[in-house]
Amino acid sequence: MRKILVIGIGAGDPEYLTVQAIAAMRAAHVFFMPAKGEEKAGLNRVRLEFLQRFVPGGQYRLVDFTVPERRKAETPNYKDSIEEWRGKLEAAYLRLFAEELAVGETGAFLVWGDPALYDGTLGILAGIQIGGIAVAFEVIPGISAVQSLAARHRIALNGVGEAMVVTTGRRVLAGEADNLKRFVVMLDNEMAFRRFAGQPMRIYWGAYLGTSDEILIAGDLSAVMDEIERVRSAAQAQHGWIMDTYMLVRNG
Amino acid sequence: MRKILVIGIGAGDPEYLTVQAIAAMRAAHVFFMPAKGEEKAGLNRVRLEFLQRFVPGGQYRLVDFTVPERRKAETPNYKDSIEEWRGKLEAAYLRLFAEELAVGETGAFLVWGDPALYDGTLGILAGIQIGGIAVAFEVIPGISAVQSLAARHRIALNGVGEAMVVTTGRRVLAGEADNLKRFVVMLDNEMAFRRFAGQPMRIYWGAYLGTSDEILIAGDLSAVMDEIERVRSAAQAQHGWIMDTYMLVRNG
Repeated sequence: MRKILVIGIGAGDPEYLTVQAIAAMRAAHVFFMPAKGEEKAGLNRVRLEFLQRFVPGGQYRLVDFTVPERRKAETPNYKDSIEEWRGKLEAAYLRLFAEELAVGETGAFLVWGDPALYDGTLGILAGIQIGGIAVAFEVIPGISAVQSLAARHRIALNGVGEAMVVTTGRRVLAGEADNLKRFVVMLDNEMAFRRFAGQPMRIYWGAYLGTSDEILIAGDLSAVMDEIERVRSAAQAQHGWIMDTYMLVRNG
Repeated sequence: MRKILVIGIGAGDPEYLTVQAIAAMRAAHVFFMPAKGEEKAGLNRVRLEFLQRFVPGGQYRLVDFTVPERRKAETPNYKDSIEEWRGKLEAAYLRLFAEELAVGETGAFLVWGDPALYDGTLGILAGIQIGGIAVAFEVIPGISAVQSLAARHRIALNGVGEAMVVTTGRRVLAGEADNLKRFVVMLDNEMAFRRFAGQPMRIYWGAYLGTSDEILIAGDLSAVMDEIERVRSAAQAQHGWIMDTYMLVRNG
């Protein structure tokens, strides 16, 4: 049997790694590295740094794999295109395990943040389970960008006795957060927070959380909105990619 | 200046501790230990085990403090009673810092899971910031029971492109989750999942997650509901307390 570890490596700071994640990294023979775009290149650099730091002198192999292209979130039938893309990924993963991993070996994915939050790996591997080849897999949770954001701003993710909601920029633009008192937004390339301009809200924004490039801005939404937009654009131009997250809290 | 570290120690498994949390534990002179009820006694035992494991031979002091009683969630004006309780807690904390922590020393709270999720410590400390005494505080995120649940069941917390929702048993009973496709329930002493009996849903349940007493049950809600209730009651009787969490996912 082949074993696959899906390891949450946290949101950027090497100190976010758990004892369990480090032990899992030390147990892997092969690391699968997604090769796609500048963002992925940036994340792969971090993965390599973590391996050098936590598995010094390790005898592991690195295997690059190409993530199939998918249609943009803005296109119609976004969900269908995600499903189609997953099918392709599943086939790519199966090939990877068959060709790059010997029976009895352990392969690992180093997943940014927590594998259970806005990452497709678990869904793909669940598909593979039913797909024929014998693969055991294990999930190691990691500190997500949502948690990093809350810790750095020293705020709670839920109001007293209230629900905690993490949603996407697309859903915010569709109006689904209009009646929420407090929510976190991920995967937002369109600065959906501008939807709430003029409303009595505070924003807690963070980019490149946990890394040495980390930027934090907090304040009254209308007062700091333009600053966030400016800082965000400049950072994106400088790095070639950006990963940001924010929380919005209605006053009172 | 006094320094306070609010350290997320994860959801039970010592291996959930992050590198950052361990470093923070090693930097603290004093640990504040809440003294209340059997559940807290159980959690304090875990805190002590973690200290022995990660800060061996440490010269730290342990300071017990009594958490003021609060009214039950079921009583009317639950929110008011929370606010009143927080005021009392704030005063108790201030006394604690003034009497048990010298200027220049670092004190720490070891918070179960992640301090940003369903824990009052951050809210209380934010109040204290404006309260007069000079206290710097820092938050260290931890693996929450929600993440532990997802990792152990190897499932994603969000549907593709959907929001992630964590809510309370009380809110579920109030009907607030009736239209959600996927959600996690915490702080549920009334098995609110029974509300959905007969509906096409799967449940992923876990108790004492991450500990050696961990129990996991997953399956069609209506098929495993009675089993969960039986197992839950027996465990609660055996341990004197229970801490459980679950996710409900609508089929299709």
